[in-house]
Amino acid sequence: MNKYIFGVDIGGTTVKMGLFDMNGNVLDKWEIPTVTANDGERILPDIADSIKAKMASEDIALDEVAGVGLGAPGPVDAEGVIYKTANLGWDTVFSIPDAMRKFIDLPVVAGNDANVAALGEMWQGGGKGYKDMVMVTLGTGVGGGIIANGRMITGATGAGGEIGHIHVEDNETDECGCHNIGCLEQYASATGVVRLARKRLEKDDTPSVMRDGVLSAKLVFDSVKFGDKVAIEVAEQFGQYLGKGLAAIAGVVNPQAFVVGGGVSKAGEVLFEYIKPYYMQYAFRGCRDAEFVLATLGNDAGIYGAAKLVLDSVK
Amino acid sequence: MNKYIFGVDIGGTTVKMGLFDMNGNVLDKWEIPTVTANDGERILPDIADSIKAKMASEDIALDEVAGVGLGAPGPVDAEGVIYKTANLGWDTVFSIPDAMRKFIDLPVVAGNDANVAALGEMWQGGGKGYKDMVMVTLGTGVGGGIIANGRMITGATGAGGEIGHIHVEDNETDECGCHNIGCLEQYASATGVVRLARKRLEKDDTPSVMRDGVLSAKLVFDSVKFGDKVAIEVAEQFGQYLGKGLAAIAGVVNPQAFVVGGGVSKAGEVLFEYIKPYYMQYAFRGCRDAEFVLATLGNDAGIYGAAKLVLDSVK
Repeated sequence: MNKYIFGVDIGGTTVKMGLFDMNGNVLDKWEIPTVTANDGERILPDIADSIKAKMASEDIALDEVAGVGLGAPGPVDAEGVIYKTANLGWDTVFSIPDAMRKFIDLPVVAGNDANVAALGEMWQGGGKGYKDMVMVTLGTGVGGGIIANGRMITGATGAGGEIGHIHVEDNETDECGCHNIGCLEQYASATGVVRLARKRLEKDDTPSVMRDGVLSAKLVFDSVKFGDKVAIEVAEQFGQYLGKGLAAIAGVVNPQAFVVGGGVSKAGEVLFEYIKPYYMQYAFRGCRDAEFVLATLGNDAGIYGAAKLVLDSVK
Repeated sequence: MNKYIFGVDIGGTTVKMGLFDMNGNVLDKWEIPTVTANDGERILPDIADSIKAKMASEDIALDEVAGVGLGAPGPVDAEGVIYKTANLGWDTVFSIPDAMRKFIDLPVVAGNDANVAALGEMWQGGGKGYKDMVMVTLGTGVGGGIIANGRMITGATGAGGEIGHIHVEDNETDECGCHNIGCLEQYASATGVVRLARKRLEKDDTPSVMRDGVLSAKLVFDSVKFGDKVAIEVAEQFGQYLGKGLAAIAGVVNPQAFVVGGGVSKAGEVLFEYIKPYYMQYAFRGCRDAEFVLATLGNDAGIYGAAKLVLDSVK
């Protein structure tokens, strides 16, 4: 009888792992290093070994485990095929479930880490209670995960939810990391906020508390809370770009809620004061009821989502 | 035993109806008028009466019918609840299946007409063979329908696929019909193409064959085929806006294909010469393999999709 699920979030340096019961309670959490040497050939067997060790120490039988869910940092399609993942050393296209089952005799499902994190937030995090939601992760880049009718949208080649590269500025001259120009990520990521702030500070000599510190997204939003006018200008720009991007997303999937996570989201609800007015300006009226909420699971969203992926697959 | 499905597409002036077998072959097609008087109270009973009459004339028993699928011109959520539909006279929020079952003793499912048409094109039209596709209808307005993993995305309030109101131009001054400014529909609909052409013709005296005719999207693209330089400029503008909008959509759902229909699509494959280069410019690289194909079902897409909605519900 199914009593347990393993949820696994494969990152570039560590693999986060969780043991869950069937109700979504995490019973145990731990990490192992991600060994990317030799084309990442150790990653899946290391995960399998760690699961087997946990099962032995907790006296869990194979037939008590519903399955293993895996989130990986690359494009993963609906069947768990991963397309490319430079940061894990995996340079071929292969089925993660098929590969994983060579090392462990359990059902395996897999998804893109950002999409899986969205599923986690829907299940046990900030998105609880919603079945149509968009997870927006404002970190070094801007990531996303789309949940429609309770399910992840993986897309044709696992690039579903790659919202950071939606074009939002025609007059940009700098290239995004993806080589396009004017991507959302260039303005709404932690890096993007710093870039906006630097450009604004260089423009003139208006006094700002930001001039005394090391520029970071945190400094910008701390300065906003302090009432710093220059920081508020930057927050308006950030909000306009993000509001415009989220409005475009709403025109596609009409979510109940945007769940905002990632480093920048640590600024808290104040972000929404700058995003929402622009969202309302750009969004089709049928989409304006969307809620804005903060993600709550932090770095654990991935293991929760990976476990939920298993739960959905056995239903 | 299920042998038949009724597919119904409710329009503002006529209701299109189709009788299908379970394999997606249309056995019969007919129309009845849409009576919008008295808050549209006759619409559903008229449809039920027409179905019953067809069943009687074809000697079809209730238990041979898998169900009735209905597409309606308004926001319809995943449960078939319709939110508002001024053009049918329906001014309340109600469940179409619940309402319809008062008039006929058959399973009923319902969806938004554009979303349902997308499902139809996927099933038996230009999108056949795809399970992740975006239907783009370039008519008086720009409509859309999103299919992810073979299912329609209805969204929280039935506004999923309202792609015509994605913001694509910051420097617009004219209002869209939705009261936003810079919507895709202002440039890529039949009306939008005419607007772009009129503005371009008014700008200077460059000779153009378009100056001799009554401006229409057809005239613009006929003139493009004729090699008219001004028309080609207009087509480039059209292509840039649509390419940008479709790239934003791809960043959300990463489709295998865009299936393009509606009046403007009668220009044919030439459209794609103007859309694709801009799509490639604005789209995230993981989404650039998307195919562009023409819709093939025309005005029948709705009845096909409505029938498919029934088929999916009984699976």
